[in-house]
Amino acid sequence: MTGSLRELFRPESIALVGATDKSGWSLSTFDNLRNHLFAGKVYLVNPRTEVVHGEAAYRSLSEIGEPVDLVYVMVPTTAVLPVLREGAGLGIRNYVVLTAGFGETGPEGKRLEDEIVAFAREHGLTVLGPNGNGYINAAGRTTPYGLPIPAPLLAGPVGVVLQSGALASSVLSFAQARNVGLSLLTSMGNEAMVSVTDVMSYLVDDPDTSVIALFLESVRHPEEFARVCRRAARAGKPVVALKIGVSALASHTAQAHTGALVGDDRVIDAAFRRLGVVRVHSLEDLIITAGLLASVGRVGGPRLGVVTPSGGASEIIADRAEQEGLELPAFAPETVQRLAAIVPDFATVQNPLDVTGYVVVDRTLLGRALEVVAADPGIDAVVLLNDLPRVQPADPSVTLQIAGATAERIRSARVPVVVVSNVLTDVTEFGRYVQAQTGFPYVAGGIEHGMTAIGHVVRWSAGVEAAGAEPGAPPPALPATAGAGEVWAEHRASAVLASSGVPVVPSQRVSGAEEAAAAAGRFGYPVVLKAAAEGLGHKSDIGGVRLGLGGPEEVRSAYREVTAALAARGLSGDAVVQPQRRGGVELLVGVVRDPSWGLTMAIALGGVWVEVLGDSALRLLPVTSDDVREALADLRGYRLLTGARGTEPADLGRLAEVIAGIGELAQRLGPDLAALEVNPLLVRGAEVEALDALITWR
Amino acid sequence: MTGSLRELFRPESIALVGATDKSGWSLSTFDNLRNHLFAGKVYLVNPRTEVVHGEAAYRSLSEIGEPVDLVYVMVPTTAVLPVLREGAGLGIRNYVVLTAGFGETGPEGKRLEDEIVAFAREHGLTVLGPNGNGYINAAGRTTPYGLPIPAPLLAGPVGVVLQSGALASSVLSFAQARNVGLSLLTSMGNEAMVSVTDVMSYLVDDPDTSVIALFLESVRHPEEFARVCRRAARAGKPVVALKIGVSALASHTAQAHTGALVGDDRVIDAAFRRLGVVRVHSLEDLIITAGLLASVGRVGGPRLGVVTPSGGASEIIADRAEQEGLELPAFAPETVQRLAAIVPDFATVQNPLDVTGYVVVDRTLLGRALEVVAADPGIDAVVLLNDLPRVQPADPSVTLQIAGATAERIRSARVPVVVVSNVLTDVTEFGRYVQAQTGFPYVAGGIEHGMTAIGHVVRWSAGVEAAGAEPGAPPPALPATAGAGEVWAEHRASAVLASSGVPVVPSQRVSGAEEAAAAAGRFGYPVVLKAAAEGLGHKSDIGGVRLGLGGPEEVRSAYREVTAALAARGLSGDAVVQPQRRGGVELLVGVVRDPSWGLTMAIALGGVWVEVLGDSALRLLPVTSDDVREALADLRGYRLLTGARGTEPADLGRLAEVIAGIGELAQRLGPDLAALEVNPLLVRGAEVEALDALITWR
Repeated sequence: MTGSLRELFRPESIALVGATDKSGWSLSTFDNLRNHLFAGKVYLVNPRTEVVHGEAAYRSLSEIGEPVDLVYVMVPTTAVLPVLREGAGLGIRNYVVLTAGFGETGPEGKRLEDEIVAFAREHGLTVLGPNGNGYINAAGRTTPYGLPIPAPLLAGPVGVVLQSGALASSVLSFAQARNVGLSLLTSMGNEAMVSVTDVMSYLVDDPDTSVIALFLESVRHPEEFARVCRRAARAGKPVVALKIGVSALASHTAQAHTGALVGDDRVIDAAFRRLGVVRVHSLEDLIITAGLLASVGRVGGPRLGVVTPSGGASEIIADRAEQEGLELPAFAPETVQRLAAIVPDFATVQNPLDVTGYVVVDRTLLGRALEVVAADPGIDAVVLLNDLPRVQPADPSVTLQIAGATAERIRSARVPVVVVSNVLTDVTEFGRYVQAQTGFPYVAGGIEHGMTAIGHVVRWSAGVEAAGAEPGAPPPALPATAGAGEVWAEHRASAVLASSGVPVVPSQRVSGAEEAAAAAGRFGYPVVLKAAAEGLGHKSDIGGVRLGLGGPEEVRSAYREVTAALAARGLSGDAVVQPQRRGGVELLVGVVRDPSWGLTMAIALGGVWVEVLGDSALRLLPVTSDDVREALADLRGYRLLTGARGTEPADLGRLAEVIAGIGELAQRLGPDLAALEVNPLLVRGAEVEALDALITWR
Repeated sequence: MTGSLRELFRPESIALVGATDKSGWSLSTFDNLRNHLFAGKVYLVNPRTEVVHGEAAYRSLSEIGEPVDLVYVMVPTTAVLPVLREGAGLGIRNYVVLTAGFGETGPEGKRLEDEIVAFAREHGLTVLGPNGNGYINAAGRTTPYGLPIPAPLLAGPVGVVLQSGALASSVLSFAQARNVGLSLLTSMGNEAMVSVTDVMSYLVDDPDTSVIALFLESVRHPEEFARVCRRAARAGKPVVALKIGVSALASHTAQAHTGALVGDDRVIDAAFRRLGVVRVHSLEDLIITAGLLASVGRVGGPRLGVVTPSGGASEIIADRAEQEGLELPAFAPETVQRLAAIVPDFATVQNPLDVTGYVVVDRTLLGRALEVVAADPGIDAVVLLNDLPRVQPADPSVTLQIAGATAERIRSARVPVVVVSNVLTDVTEFGRYVQAQTGFPYVAGGIEHGMTAIGHVVRWSAGVEAAGAEPGAPPPALPATAGAGEVWAEHRASAVLASSGVPVVPSQRVSGAEEAAAAAGRFGYPVVLKAAAEGLGHKSDIGGVRLGLGGPEEVRSAYREVTAALAARGLSGDAVVQPQRRGGVELLVGVVRDPSWGLTMAIALGGVWVEVLGDSALRLLPVTSDDVREALADLRGYRLLTGARGTEPADLGRLAEVIAGIGELAQRLGPDLAALEVNPLLVRGAEVEALDALITWR
């Protein structure tokens, strides 16, 4: 698709079909092309009017009589297909369809949409939309876009793709206010043919684009999305996404609007983490973070040196750094010495550094301090608190000189320097002028959003390499499969675990009370006795799990009771006997098949932790044992595994290995596996053992 | 102090002493007074120059020969006191001291500062600062303020008090960008004489001020702060505060800067909650929330109707509403019917409402939908997503007409209407013009910060009445007191609890193994045996708690072992025997005396919950049982008390009563109490029992 998108996004002539003075969309599209200096030809087509927007109009595409590269379609719903027919006959290959009334309205509209797609496919056409505002190719000054684009249109490194028409204008406006230039902005509409992932793929290859920013209601093609994200990571192009639908209500709203399945939000988090996608939670963070990534690229680590002219701001930055998991290490002795020679006597030399209000007297103070801090060997990046000037002074030369000197210091710094302003206000016209004249870099807007963005940059930098790796071949499938909808309970599931190397508590299937007592005697008391029957899911619901049996008589009567409970439910079965384990920490390790993202592992602390707190970490499969260790550390109750409350610290390496093995087993069980759950997985020091398991087949 | 502050903030003549062309501060102060139209007289004083800032200068205050109401002092540190002396001799009562080099620099500076304060007190002077930039009385166009104030200076209802000089300019700039007018902005400096609470108190009485916004590094006078916050609540004036020092590092920084004790951040949260202070976490939220509170005042509840022209924005709003604990109830049937008649066929009528991009065609659509939603009986407020126009169109009349019609609908709505823009960009000059011409209300800047602000407004509204109540007289002190530093362990502490009506598990002090066994026999097995000795704090550290003793022989040997452990530590003592309780949920209820805020209660779930998760809720004393119920519901593990995992649901009313009783007991133990801890407090259904307690005296 990338090849044809290049044509779609770089036309040399555009026809607006359905152009009319009565439509705000038509007027905006025409104004945009005229005001933002589209270099090619624009033809207005209207069968019933001779003059549109003050220019002579053509009655049809055919009447134009010159080559047309792109048709922007604004005709009524049922007239769209005829326009495509006419265009195809003339050899016109690219279409943006603004017209609504298609798939978003119901089955009848969907039928019309399908017709268009079928026709386009058949004739090799590329159609963006329908029900989308079009796109803005700012680098190419090509703006077939149906809503007003305020001047100036800033070209730059951020490519934006939106599954929302109305928000495109907000994003555009906010990017302008931040002085963030865009390469391409695309309002996707119904994605009947060209999809978000198609445009992303184009942007990965687009030399004008270095960061991709997304507004997503749903991820419609998870596998394609994953592929293009990996390509972006390998190209060193960050993908930043605002994915809505966090709340239950929003997920309902999104369905009403898009008809697309909105997956579970936590699975999206897990998928984005795996793919190196930076997930943001506001439109402001989308652009501020994308702008910062475009400006500084990769950062070597989380250790920041902070240079400010304000104690109060330093403290806000320190608060926010802690929340973002960033570090403000003490400066090296030489740095302290050099700073002490620069700052006023009453300043305190520390990180974060407040050079004090003396910047009013000595306007070079901040820049000189920056130079010293940037040379500190113990930091990975500098945060410089420095507002852009808002209002042009009578004589701007001093302002320009100071900004130029700071810009030069930033360019020659050993580590990336992130410039952050105090508060999120627009970059004014004079601010833009200063940046253009002096090369003063991107300014992240305000401490609050700026620190959020720095956190994202540091985490993206740490993960981008892994995110770009193609997944290896899946492990070979095991021969064993099962019938549809079958459930393998404990004894059978445990055997599968054991056969693939997952440590499982010893157990014996027993038929009859005497056999149960004999098995118990061999294991040593106390033991556990559990019901075993085909098709029995949660044993504990029928009282089918008996713990802490202390002698043969207890075992015998437990056997009788448990099998009676099975019989009462019409199940024929017997029981399993195991030694009872004491102490340690219980985990739950479950793998489920998410309809969008495939096998997904949940790791949780058992008991109240998962039941009351929902304390779990999600990861897409496959997982390495390193992935698992990181997931374990994400648990709120992680300290239970590291020896809190006097427990024996778990051997985290061993535990992670076993859990990664469970993940691999789930993959090997093949496409019919619906879910595999080990619950509990017991860990005591280096001993890790599955005490029970359940396998559900599709 | 309020009376003299009225003089300080409303002078009719100002002398700038130390005025010089060489100082940016001097120039800014002079420019500010001139450019922002100070109506009174300004005198420049410099003993060594005849002309300053292009005007004739006076050699001294005495030379002026006319009444001066306020002196703005910019002379060197050691020259400040002489200026005050001269002024006092001339009967000048009000001073703003910009000069630094005082308490913020160390002991020598502190001595100079103390001298100034002593002199001022003796002569009835009012001194703001030193080391502060002064103030901006925007309502009175009086601007003795040492940093540039960009035009236009917007007068309005928000009073701002800052413990930071540099951030004052950022707040000013951001308020201007939001079109939020200020009544008074004060940069406090060292608060040598005039304190934050003094200015707050002035603002509570100031008719120009309806909301008070604070930037705090520390709360220096907690009792005064509490008093003025209660007064503000009774006056219906919200107090919004950005209090920094959340991180450990920031607390260190703040100390370095202010010398003031920064209390534990969670205690600040508890204190602000009690006092109805809205705590925000960014400069943006400080102004956006203050502006919204000034604009809409109290809101009746959390049920919002949302009206937008965008599906994507609706979903972001739904996500954010859920995070803020706000509700988006379904519209009433009549509302749905009326909306269906207004919106296009393909729109979905639901809350949040997306009237669709047809607003481009029909610019009245949003306003008409607003009118219908505002009439819905099931909502407490409307959120209207509506950007202010940024750029003046060729013909602004339609824009003004639409804005005017919407403004009228908002004014006549049954419930408050909160207008929110899509993204946080500046209100432009044209936007300000539209607001001024049409009465279009305040626009909260961007969905992200706007929804934060709405959450604050709703919570503030719900709590303001309780926040304004004066604390009742403390309960009468108990006669019993203790020696300094003493620790009363379990048996003695339990007796205190029991004597004031807190239910305590039965227990018997025993001397000797036989007496222990006899007591155990009376209670019935199993029992608990605990070491009892004067000065013994945490018994479990020495193995002094023995649980689950099943028979007399176990009790006897436990007694012998425990007393031996005491002896080994040089403690003489014996033991206590109690029945062993089973099941239920254990809580920890602790009261400690915070150096700033006094007795503070922590309620936690016991065991791993508090030790690993730190799962606790803090409240200042006194607490009612309603306060306690609310605190219990704040616990992450709250569901353990409501029957999660098949446990017996706790009688929350009874539990809250007992905990409130523990709080009252702590108050009655008088000023020597350092800490009172009940751990565990066991609850099983309606049974609530203290199983152990510890009292520490100062």
